[in-house]
Amino acid sequence: MDEVLALTRGNPPAEALPVSWLTQCCEFALKKYGNILLQYHSAYGFAPLRESLAKEAGASSEEVVVCNGSIQILHFLAKTLLAPGDSVIVERPTYDRAITAFRQAGVTVVGVPLEEDGVGIKAFEQMVQKFSPKLFYIIPDFQNPTGVTTSLEKRLAIVEIAKRYNMFIVEDIAYRKLRYIGSDVPTFRELIPHQVIQIASFSKLIAPGLRVGYLIAQEKIAKHIGKLAEDAYITPNMLSQGIVYEFLIRGFFDLNLQNLKSLYMPRLSAMLKALQMHLPQGNWTRPEGGFFVGLWLTNSALSIDTVFNLARTKGLLLAQSVGFFPDDDPSGFIRLPFCGLSEEQIFKAIKCLADAVNQAALCV
Amino acid sequence: MDEVLALTRGNPPAEALPVSWLTQCCEFALKKYGNILLQYHSAYGFAPLRESLAKEAGASSEEVVVCNGSIQILHFLAKTLLAPGDSVIVERPTYDRAITAFRQAGVTVVGVPLEEDGVGIKAFEQMVQKFSPKLFYIIPDFQNPTGVTTSLEKRLAIVEIAKRYNMFIVEDIAYRKLRYIGSDVPTFRELIPHQVIQIASFSKLIAPGLRVGYLIAQEKIAKHIGKLAEDAYITPNMLSQGIVYEFLIRGFFDLNLQNLKSLYMPRLSAMLKALQMHLPQGNWTRPEGGFFVGLWLTNSALSIDTVFNLARTKGLLLAQSVGFFPDDDPSGFIRLPFCGLSEEQIFKAIKCLADAVNQAALCV
Repeated sequence: MDEVLALTRGNPPAEALPVSWLTQCCEFALKKYGNILLQYHSAYGFAPLRESLAKEAGASSEEVVVCNGSIQILHFLAKTLLAPGDSVIVERPTYDRAITAFRQAGVTVVGVPLEEDGVGIKAFEQMVQKFSPKLFYIIPDFQNPTGVTTSLEKRLAIVEIAKRYNMFIVEDIAYRKLRYIGSDVPTFRELIPHQVIQIASFSKLIAPGLRVGYLIAQEKIAKHIGKLAEDAYITPNMLSQGIVYEFLIRGFFDLNLQNLKSLYMPRLSAMLKALQMHLPQGNWTRPEGGFFVGLWLTNSALSIDTVFNLARTKGLLLAQSVGFFPDDDPSGFIRLPFCGLSEEQIFKAIKCLADAVNQAALCV
Repeated sequence: MDEVLALTRGNPPAEALPVSWLTQCCEFALKKYGNILLQYHSAYGFAPLRESLAKEAGASSEEVVVCNGSIQILHFLAKTLLAPGDSVIVERPTYDRAITAFRQAGVTVVGVPLEEDGVGIKAFEQMVQKFSPKLFYIIPDFQNPTGVTTSLEKRLAIVEIAKRYNMFIVEDIAYRKLRYIGSDVPTFRELIPHQVIQIASFSKLIAPGLRVGYLIAQEKIAKHIGKLAEDAYITPNMLSQGIVYEFLIRGFFDLNLQNLKSLYMPRLSAMLKALQMHLPQGNWTRPEGGFFVGLWLTNSALSIDTVFNLARTKGLLLAQSVGFFPDDDPSGFIRLPFCGLSEEQIFKAIKCLADAVNQAALCV
C-alpha cells in the first residue's frame, strides 16, 4: 500500500482553492469597506452582495439572506416552516447533513427512491398523499450523493404535485454551476417562484472555509430567516461576504469557474472510464457535472461493510453510506467523489474498490 | 439639532478597528495556511488558535472550542446543559441577547438584582434555593449593561453557593481585558475551574465583524459543543480564525489593546464627569473598564419612555432598556455606551439626556 486514497468527502482539492485571488479580494474588501465588514451588521448579510445575488437571480434584495453556509440555512428553514411531528420528503439517497438538520427539528424524513432522471413521480405523489409533507428538499442538479440531475419532465411533474398539495420545494443548487457537459435544465425557482426556496453556496464554487451560503425566498420567509439569524449569531461573517463580493465584481468568479471545470471534467471522465474498466458489473450514474458519481453494487448478497473494510486494507477510504438514507438502509450504495483525486489516482482507487468487491464476493 | 448622537449599541467606533493590521494578517494567514483555512475543517476551530488560547488560559486544547461569536456558544450551551422547563439565573439587568438565547431553549430566566459590586448574595442564594437553576450566567467584569464588576468577596460567596447547590457558572468575559484603571479580580474559572464554563470573544478586542468567540470548559462539555457546532454549520469561519491567530502571534493584539485603552479611558472619564455635571440627581456606576456606564433615574415617577422620546427630539438616541430585564421592568434604567462617541460628543449627549429628564419631570 503506497499511498492512502480517500473517496470520502466532497472537499475541493487544494489545487482548486484560489488562494491568491482571495488574498487580493480580502485586501480590496478591507480597503473599500473595512469599517462595514469589521463591524456589527444586519443579519441579512452584506448589502452589496445581497444586491448582486438578487440581481443575478432576478429577485429583490429583500428576498435574499446571506448566511454562514447553507446547512445553517436548513436549520433556520426548519424552524421557520416546520413544527415537530411534521413530515418532509427528500430524495433517497440524499445529503446526510440535510437529513440531520430536519431530524433535529423533530421532523419525520421520508425518502423517495431516485431514478437516473430524478425521483419516481408515482412514488413521489403517493408519499405526498400519505405524509402531507410541508416541503420537498431536493438537490436537482448533480445531486449529492448520486450525481443525478432531475429532468425537465420530472421537474414539471413535481411542480404540478407541489401546486396541487400546496407544498414548498426547497431546492439546493450547490453544484448547479459546475456543469461540464450538456445544457442547464430550468431551476424550480424559474418554474414556480412563489413556492420555491432556493439555497445556494460558495463552498464548491470558491472555497468551503469562507462559509458563505445564501437563500432566495419570498420576502416574508426571508425576513423570518433573517430574524432567526440575528438571534443565532447577531451578524454573519462579514469579511467573507466582502471577499465574495469582490470575487464576483472583479470577474474572478467566472475565471475560477472555468478553472474548476477544466480541473474536474477530466476527473469525471476518468471516474466513468475506471468504473467501466474495473467494475463493469456495477450500476453507476453518468453525471454531467458536480462532485459525485453514485455506484450501486448489483450483487445484493455482498456486505457493503465487508467491501469497505477490505478497501481500507488496500489503502482506499470510502464514506459510510448509511447517513444518506433516511431509512438507514444503504442498499449496496457507494458515493464516489471524483474531484479530489488526480485521474491516475482515480483509476487506482477504482481498481482497489473492484478488488475489494471481488474479494468480498468470495466471502458470500 | 445639528448632529444625531447614538448611545444605543455597544459597537466599537470606526477609529478602533485595526483595518491595516487585519489586512496584513489576512495576507499572512492565507499565505501560510490558505489550504487549511479555505477548506472544510473540524468544527472545534483552527488548531493553532485553539492551542494558543488554551495555553493562555492554562487549559488543554481539548477544552477550547472556537465558534462564530459568543452568542451562538450560548445557544449551544443551552442545548447542552438545559432542557425546556429548567431555570437559569442571570444578573438583573443583563445582556439582552443572552436572555433571548436562554428563552429560545424553553428555559425560565430569573434575575437577581445587581448591586455596585455584583448581585446581592442573600437574594442570590434565595433564588438558587427557590428555582434550583442549572446555571448562573454572569458577566463578572464591566458588565453589559451596567459596567459593574463583581468583587472578589462576592465571587467567593457565589462559588460557595455554586458548590453547595451543584450549579454551573457560565462566565462571559467579553470585556475583561478592557480594564482602564485598577487591578484584575480572579476569574471564576481561576476559582472553581471544573464548575465554570468561560465564554470569550474578540468582538470588543479586535473587531465584531470577524465573528470569533470561544468557550473554555471541561473536555466533556467542549466535545458536546463541538458536535453541536458541526451539526449547525459544519465548519466555523476559518479565515477569521486564521486572521485572529496571526493577530495574536504577531503582537498586534497587545498593541491594539493599548490603543483601545488609550481611546476608551478618556471617554469613560468624560462620561462620568458629564453625569456629575448634568445629572447629579441620578445614580450611576463607576466602572474601571469596558463599554458601559449604567444609569438609574432616581425620580421613580418619571416615565422612561417619555425621557427616551424627548431625548430623540433633541437628537439623542438611546437603547430601549426593557430587554435587559428578565422581568420586563426596566425601572428607570438607561445603558450608556461610552466608547462610540468622542469626549465632546459625550458631554453633548449627556446634556441632551439631562434636558430630556428635566423636561420629563415637568410632565409628571
